[in-house]
Amino acid sequence: MTTHVLDLAIALEAQGDDLYHGHTSAAYANMIGPFGGATAATVMQALMRHPQRLGEVVALTLNYAGPVADGAFIIATRIVRTNRSTQHWYIELRQGAEVALTATAVTATRRDTWGDTELRFPGVVPPAAIAPMPPVPWAAWTKNYDMRFMRGGPEGLPTDGSGSADSLSHLWIRDEPPRPLDFASLTAICDAFFPRLFLRRPKMVPIGTVSLTIYFHADSVALTAQGTDAVLAVAQGQHFGQGYFDQSAQIWSRSGVPLATTHQVVYYKD
Amino acid sequence: MTTHVLDLAIALEAQGDDLYHGHTSAAYANMIGPFGGATAATVMQALMRHPQRLGEVVALTLNYAGPVADGAFIIATRIVRTNRSTQHWYIELRQGAEVALTATAVTATRRDTWGDTELRFPGVVPPAAIAPMPPVPWAAWTKNYDMRFMRGGPEGLPTDGSGSADSLSHLWIRDEPPRPLDFASLTAICDAFFPRLFLRRPKMVPIGTVSLTIYFHADSVALTAQGTDAVLAVAQGQHFGQGYFDQSAQIWSRSGVPLATTHQVVYYKD
Repeated sequence: MTTHVLDLAIALEAQGDDLYHGHTSAAYANMIGPFGGATAATVMQALMRHPQRLGEVVALTLNYAGPVADGAFIIATRIVRTNRSTQHWYIELRQGAEVALTATAVTATRRDTWGDTELRFPGVVPPAAIAPMPPVPWAAWTKNYDMRFMRGGPEGLPTDGSGSADSLSHLWIRDEPPRPLDFASLTAICDAFFPRLFLRRPKMVPIGTVSLTIYFHADSVALTAQGTDAVLAVAQGQHFGQGYFDQSAQIWSRSGVPLATTHQVVYYKD
Repeated sequence: MTTHVLDLAIALEAQGDDLYHGHTSAAYANMIGPFGGATAATVMQALMRHPQRLGEVVALTLNYAGPVADGAFIIATRIVRTNRSTQHWYIELRQGAEVALTATAVTATRRDTWGDTELRFPGVVPPAAIAPMPPVPWAAWTKNYDMRFMRGGPEGLPTDGSGSADSLSHLWIRDEPPRPLDFASLTAICDAFFPRLFLRRPKMVPIGTVSLTIYFHADSVALTAQGTDAVLAVAQGQHFGQGYFDQSAQIWSRSGVPLATTHQVVYYKD
């Protein structure tokens, strides 16, 4: 059996409970440095590997503090507080003396309760009815995803010289080759949206996520039940101004169950 | 001149650059412990007071790790990394040996750029046309706000024995007595929404925010320009299940400029 390219990218070697050694993956390279979603998934993997973790991740916030250089890094985890059903974490990804990423997480044991979804599952056509997007040459990581856009696809990217009236995207997305969904792959998918700015404005400028938050609405049982099926990803920019914009997004199962909601704020130049 | 009740609540005594002594305020008491928005505003105040801060806050995430007891606390700040135009922070609020709150922040110097708002400013009636909500007896902090609901108001709260079809609220809100808007008061307002669950389900259960993220779209110049005017606050729950729900919200100026977008995930029992 071949190890999946994502599992190679997020592989960690533990040194005690709170220190994990990892290495960037050429397969998940972005224009500069690694795809932020792969970095996020590696942080999630450290949490999943941790022998003292209570429950599963409910909230994860990642702050991209500086560029991650190609090569080795360490992830240092710290359990700040453990309660009866929740646990609070602070995490750093470091390269040498520099902190490249800070993160906080809340893990929790979850129980069945009353529930409801107020978000609306958008009208969709099945993945099989849509052609997958060809990988983007300047973003190597895109070849590890099967993305099928219903709206807000790469036709709006600056390489095509046009801009869209809004930054709303609907797409089916799954790992390529197919891989069963888990917390790590879902985390990466939460950052797999093209910058909303590029959909709006046909101009290539320096850009980068500074803070990303994910709220997980599914537990590992529900994620495992997804198998290798594509998930529906919906994202839209909310406000752009003074060098920063924010994006809100949702990841849905094919049957219309929300798996995660995720938000980020992104720096851009000009 | 009398010091405003919010300024008394968020007052800090500095001990060096990175340690701030504070005290909970009876005026901002909630059912149990202090109103989370007052705690959040105090963390913001530590950032605003910090002599080495670069720029203004773009992103702030607060994780409520455990109850804050009435009494003294310290806020310990740490600058994790300073770049050319951004700075990354890790912050803890502690009482004795316990960490009650962790936070990360990104501050940045901002410049004028292309901008646009995709969020839609909802139709509103002016604050003067709506009666202010009477303070909620079991939530002392509510008497420090003038809240005027256009929809999703306290008529949906469990004390009235009814539930709403959705958890969407539109309200005008300002400090009471009036106080010029700044980063601290805006931070508190971002957590001044009644739990979305209570609007949906007429049942009082233990509940508490575990993680709150705020993206600031305005700088201090824009906030100062608001003066003591009410801001429009919009909030809605997205998904409720397995003991946690998430909420997305926006804070707007009266003229329809987004000041902040904010998200949180909330624990609830049953």
